[in-house]
Amino acid sequence: MPQVHLCEVGPRDGLQNAKHLMSTEAKKAWIAALADAGLREIEVGSFVPPKLIPAMADTAEIVAFSRKIAGVKIVALAPNLKGFQRAVEAGAHKVTFPVSASRLHSESNVRMTPEQMIEEVHRCVSHPHPGVEIEGAVSTAFGCTMQGEVPEDDVVRIAAELASFCDAVALADTVGYANPAQVKRIFSRVREKIGGKLEGAHFHNTRGLGLANALAAYEVGVRAFDSSMGGLGGCPFAPGASGNVITEDLVFMFESMGISTGIDLAKLFKAREILVSAIPEEPVYGHTPVAGLPKGFRAAA
Amino acid sequence: MPQVHLCEVGPRDGLQNAKHLMSTEAKKAWIAALADAGLREIEVGSFVPPKLIPAMADTAEIVAFSRKIAGVKIVALAPNLKGFQRAVEAGAHKVTFPVSASRLHSESNVRMTPEQMIEEVHRCVSHPHPGVEIEGAVSTAFGCTMQGEVPEDDVVRIAAELASFCDAVALADTVGYANPAQVKRIFSRVREKIGGKLEGAHFHNTRGLGLANALAAYEVGVRAFDSSMGGLGGCPFAPGASGNVITEDLVFMFESMGISTGIDLAKLFKAREILVSAIPEEPVYGHTPVAGLPKGFRAAA
Repeated sequence: MPQVHLCEVGPRDGLQNAKHLMSTEAKKAWIAALADAGLREIEVGSFVPPKLIPAMADTAEIVAFSRKIAGVKIVALAPNLKGFQRAVEAGAHKVTFPVSASRLHSESNVRMTPEQMIEEVHRCVSHPHPGVEIEGAVSTAFGCTMQGEVPEDDVVRIAAELASFCDAVALADTVGYANPAQVKRIFSRVREKIGGKLEGAHFHNTRGLGLANALAAYEVGVRAFDSSMGGLGGCPFAPGASGNVITEDLVFMFESMGISTGIDLAKLFKAREILVSAIPEEPVYGHTPVAGLPKGFRAAA
Repeated sequence: MPQVHLCEVGPRDGLQNAKHLMSTEAKKAWIAALADAGLREIEVGSFVPPKLIPAMADTAEIVAFSRKIAGVKIVALAPNLKGFQRAVEAGAHKVTFPVSASRLHSESNVRMTPEQMIEEVHRCVSHPHPGVEIEGAVSTAFGCTMQGEVPEDDVVRIAAELASFCDAVALADTVGYANPAQVKRIFSRVREKIGGKLEGAHFHNTRGLGLANALAAYEVGVRAFDSSMGGLGGCPFAPGASGNVITEDLVFMFESMGISTGIDLAKLFKAREILVSAIPEEPVYGHTPVAGLPKGFRAAA
């Protein structure tokens, strides 16, 4: 069993915010390569109106394809009941609902207060979803480009409310405001409140602190991390918030520390080649694939 | 008093390894701007043969200029006696000697074993150097592109030998191989051996782990860090080893954690503009200057 669990969010958070569209066939090849590299959870798309976000128009087909890959948990994002029902129909193993802890971001993004959005998620998941895992993701949990500071008490309260009816709760630094001290403080506070239901950490690399924040989260017991190949991604509703934490560098960090990820770096770099050739104009980040692995590098046992 | 002390090494480690030459006048303007931003220690150049490294040919003039800036410790690198004497004559407040812990790197770089290089440094500093601080910097302390793994025992032994006659000892990840677990382990072992003489941590960002490694070092008590504006730098004798840890992002990380650096980020970004306009063709890195400071950001008190 790997010591940390990574969820690759590039096909969703990455492509949803990329400037260039990836073809359905390329998405399938990329996802298959990611699974082959050892990713055991992949967020493959979101069920949002195709007119609003054309990059996600093929999500049902992508979910149907991906769920056939043995041993990989397929995640889809849903912002509302319609999206949730489409996700369940398509066969997603897990559905994640974003709930913004920032009042301003929530109102601007979904025209609901955080409390209304929690109610909305509650309504959604009271509909049938046999065998489908539900995650409540607290977004803008570390700050917001509109509101600035997001009170930690709000984050803890929203996480606790989501934990009361979701299978798992994640905390997301949607706009890249988090710092390691804050990461340790907030994850510790939320864990104290909801225990094992606190799972994933979703960081962005907007100010270069992605790996430092992941390290900080690891040090307070977080063992599940979202990341995006090539650092693709961001939030279109939060200006300047580009760049998820980079999968390649995150895997390298953990493996070089002797913490197993279950991911094969050589195969991961091959998956990156598929990404790069599918959308060659898109900026793709990551130091480790460029510098290469250290001489004599050994992955964690 | 700032809670962490940063030494800006861009004018030395950065420019020494940059593809483009910076004029002497631009160097002076940049160094003055760095000092104005609050940097209290700047490695301004190295005393190496100008024919080998033209970028450092004006180091004596730069040291003479820089030492007039009140309250800033001016550092120069010297690889041998001749360089040391030039550094002392020029008026450097501190001279740093690199001693590679990697046998192969040392033999290739200075044609001496690490033991011979320690002897050489010892011989140098037995020459008069009134009021000049001596630092022994253990380079390739976390791995080497030629040798691969560098035994930790070698690093501890070399650090201890340097500590027996130097004022301070630093550990450098010359080629960007370090990981946070290793950083904590090696800094702790060396501190156990030499106590307060262990000062600086010099990290590269070659595999994206620069800030994570700095965080790890901070967590085991390190309070002095080298960094380079725009992540300029690397080691010409270690292929692929480009990029020091980025001053702008390092300052942002610490300040956002509430750890004071004494550095004004707005003024730091102005110093970056001088760097960029002086060598516009040179790749300059750093996320925070591009993304900007978070809304409502407050520097550490």
